[in-house]
Amino acid sequence: MSNFGCFDLRLVNAYRVAVDEARSAVKAGAVIEKAREFTTVAEAVADCSLVVGTTAIGNRELQHTLKRLETGGTGIRKHLAAGAPAAILFGSEKFGLSNDDMTHCDWLIRIPTREEHGSMNLGQAVAVTLYELIRNPRAVTATPRAKKAATSEQLERVTTLLLDALRHSGYVNEKTAASTEHKTRRLVKRMDLPGADVEALQGMLRQILWKFGQS
Amino acid sequence: MSNFGCFDLRLVNAYRVAVDEARSAVKAGAVIEKAREFTTVAEAVADCSLVVGTTAIGNRELQHTLKRLETGGTGIRKHLAAGAPAAILFGSEKFGLSNDDMTHCDWLIRIPTREEHGSMNLGQAVAVTLYELIRNPRAVTATPRAKKAATSEQLERVTTLLLDALRHSGYVNEKTAASTEHKTRRLVKRMDLPGADVEALQGMLRQILWKFGQS
Repeated sequence: MSNFGCFDLRLVNAYRVAVDEARSAVKAGAVIEKAREFTTVAEAVADCSLVVGTTAIGNRELQHTLKRLETGGTGIRKHLAAGAPAAILFGSEKFGLSNDDMTHCDWLIRIPTREEHGSMNLGQAVAVTLYELIRNPRAVTATPRAKKAATSEQLERVTTLLLDALRHSGYVNEKTAASTEHKTRRLVKRMDLPGADVEALQGMLRQILWKFGQS
Repeated sequence: MSNFGCFDLRLVNAYRVAVDEARSAVKAGAVIEKAREFTTVAEAVADCSLVVGTTAIGNRELQHTLKRLETGGTGIRKHLAAGAPAAILFGSEKFGLSNDDMTHCDWLIRIPTREEHGSMNLGQAVAVTLYELIRNPRAVTATPRAKKAATSEQLERVTTLLLDALRHSGYVNEKTAASTEHKTRRLVKRMDLPGADVEALQGMLRQILWKFGQS
């Protein structure tokens, strides 16, 4: 909840021992510290104008509209964007929401897990649901500081050094030397090297050539 | 992983005790049973043509392109759709991926957690990431078996019964009786009742009227 900026945790008939342990834990965050406890769902959602239940069940006999999280999330986002409070109701990990709990819900969402393994870990279900609410597909991508692409001159220096090394190593066959030169130049071009990498490559190749000169 | 149909778990230098415990647990699923162990990242991702790392870090000095999960997910989906194997690399919960681990990655993704609380529980981070890969915004919404809308005649019966009850209760003022009738009829119209609910409402109102008749 804290990861995704949701701070209003409300517990209904929570297991005493677990709550006390969580509250007194060293790493108890703001969310659990400020969590409020209720004895009924009705009290917990009293001030919310939208109550959405969660279920692992696919298409069992439905009393409620059941939306996949992807589409249901849009409805919840719209509600929140209008400044209206919304509650998302999660059942216990073992039994989920009871039919009685569900009568407090406007509609239900289902995380699109596969049919053979529908039921999720509670913490993971909460994380996935809240992620859907905050995800922003128009978010930008951060790229490392703009790489200055290598110039043709720099690339040609790499090609020359590489060809030198290949010749010294015996890779170049005299008959096909011209073809090898062309192949090598195109190969270096395709590497799409930034200028800084050209420097590094030149250093490596010069060292190799120096070693060839030694022997 | 199993919830979202991902079965190929590969562990690198996993903590022996934790792995053995997980494997021998009663509820150990197919994923953990078939998990393979490696001693280096290089071996673990050897057969993958895309390796995406995960990080909690925002805009620290980047050596890699860093995409938010929403946009990065698209890239991974495309790669998989082309039948090519992709690996998603998660670091340990405490330290994340090391710089050395990251050199095996083509680029990085970041779950868009808030800045003040960036680091996530590992299981939750995996769940959120895999959900992003399988989410399908064009999924349809299941609605309860088509409700047959109430006919005007049925609605009028409800209105009549409700007005009877209101009269018996003393709610209707003689001077404004006509206005109250109109208000009540419009109110019932707005309820958008399905036929089955009309029956139930009629039953309730008849019972109320019966009780009024008794007293």
